Amino acid sequence: MDYFEPFNSYIELEKMKLDPEGKLIIRRLSDVVDIFQDKKTAKEISLKENPIIYKVYNVQIPEENGHLQHCISIVFPGRIGNEYYMTKGHFHKIKGTSEIYLTLKGRGKLVMQTPDQKSKVLEMKEGSISYIPPYWAHRTVNIGDEPLIFFGVYRGDAGHNYGIIEKKEFVKLIVERNGQINVIDNPNY
Amino acid sequence: MDYFEPFNSYIELEKMKLDPEGKLIIRRLSDVVDIFQDKKTAKEISLKENPIIYKVYNVQIPEENGHLQHCISIVFPGRIGNEYYMTKGHFHKIKGTSEIYLTLKGRGKLVMQTPDQKSKVLEMKEGSISYIPPYWAHRTVNIGDEPLIFFGVYRGDAGHNYGIIEKKEFVKLIVERNGQINVIDNPNY
Repeated sequence: MDYFEPFNSYIELEKMKLDPEGKLIIRRLSDVVDIFQDKKTAKEISLKENPIIYKVYNVQIPEENGHLQHCISIVFPGRIGNEYYMTKGHFHKIKGTSEIYLTLKGRGKLVMQTPDQKSKVLEMKEGSISYIPPYWAHRTVNIGDEPLIFFGVYRGDAGHNYGIIEKKEFVKLIVERNGQINVIDNPNY
Repeated sequence: MDYFEPFNSYIELEKMKLDPEGKLIIRRLSDVVDIFQDKKTAKEISLKENPIIYKVYNVQIPEENGHLQHCISIVFPGRIGNEYYMTKGHFHKIKGTSEIYLTLKGRGKLVMQTPDQKSKVLEMKEGSISYIPPYWAHRTVNIGDEPLIFFGVYRGDAGHNYGIIEKKEFVKLIVERNGQINVIDNPNY
């Protein structure tokens, strides 16, 4: 039998890199203008500085049930209007699959919701292990002043489904008001 | 639909604890005398100090395909004769499932083998992410002077199968000789 060979990747936290880097996805503001409530400001900034909002280093693994995908994600600090930088967020294509995030650095919020729009928000900080059970869509938001770096694991064949998230965003939004971090209702729902 | 609720666990590296601690497994030498080549010495020490060889904090998750088990393991430093402290090691009950280790602290060797006794040994050190693909039995060995602490993730229903490992141990042994760390052939094979 031909066995898939074990191997190591190495996180270099200070350099914010994975070695080997695998498949690197870089999302600049121009790629994710629509995830922000203030799309006008997002658009303007995307035409000037166009900052990197987040990066994901994906280790390359077969997309099969017995395998485990894993990645290092980096969400940079910043805001568009009063909304913090964040990932697009998604359900899994195979909805009944889960995901785990181990936070290595920074401070964040993990925003989740079910297909029937039940919501849950967890803290992310160094040493937090967040369990995202089957069926929950998930997004990460950087609420700190430094990059939010976390390790993620999910089933090999889980896939991504942007679905309703792409149309209406999440039920809950994470915004700054008077120097405070607030979880508010999304007016789109 | 009833959804399993998301939740956090927190690693406290300095205290070597998980909070909440989940299901804690403590393996003292008396529990694992037979994994060492020098069983006579192991037995003697187990009747005196009986040190803890390793601990595993298991987060409690349904044992189902869509879920992901996760745990924090701590292998303490030490040797029995010239053999370093290590875990029992196992295949998964569902053999075609994988596992991932992210090393948080310490230095180790990850010893693996296939059912047809092909062997592979990877380094473990802070920031190493080791991918244990489907079918590979796996054991961790502490080759350093401090606890080896790592985060593990595997499919909810993967299970454990000690099988041939319990009878013959692994094809490769990790031993100290003249202050050096050596990977040697197991005479049982």
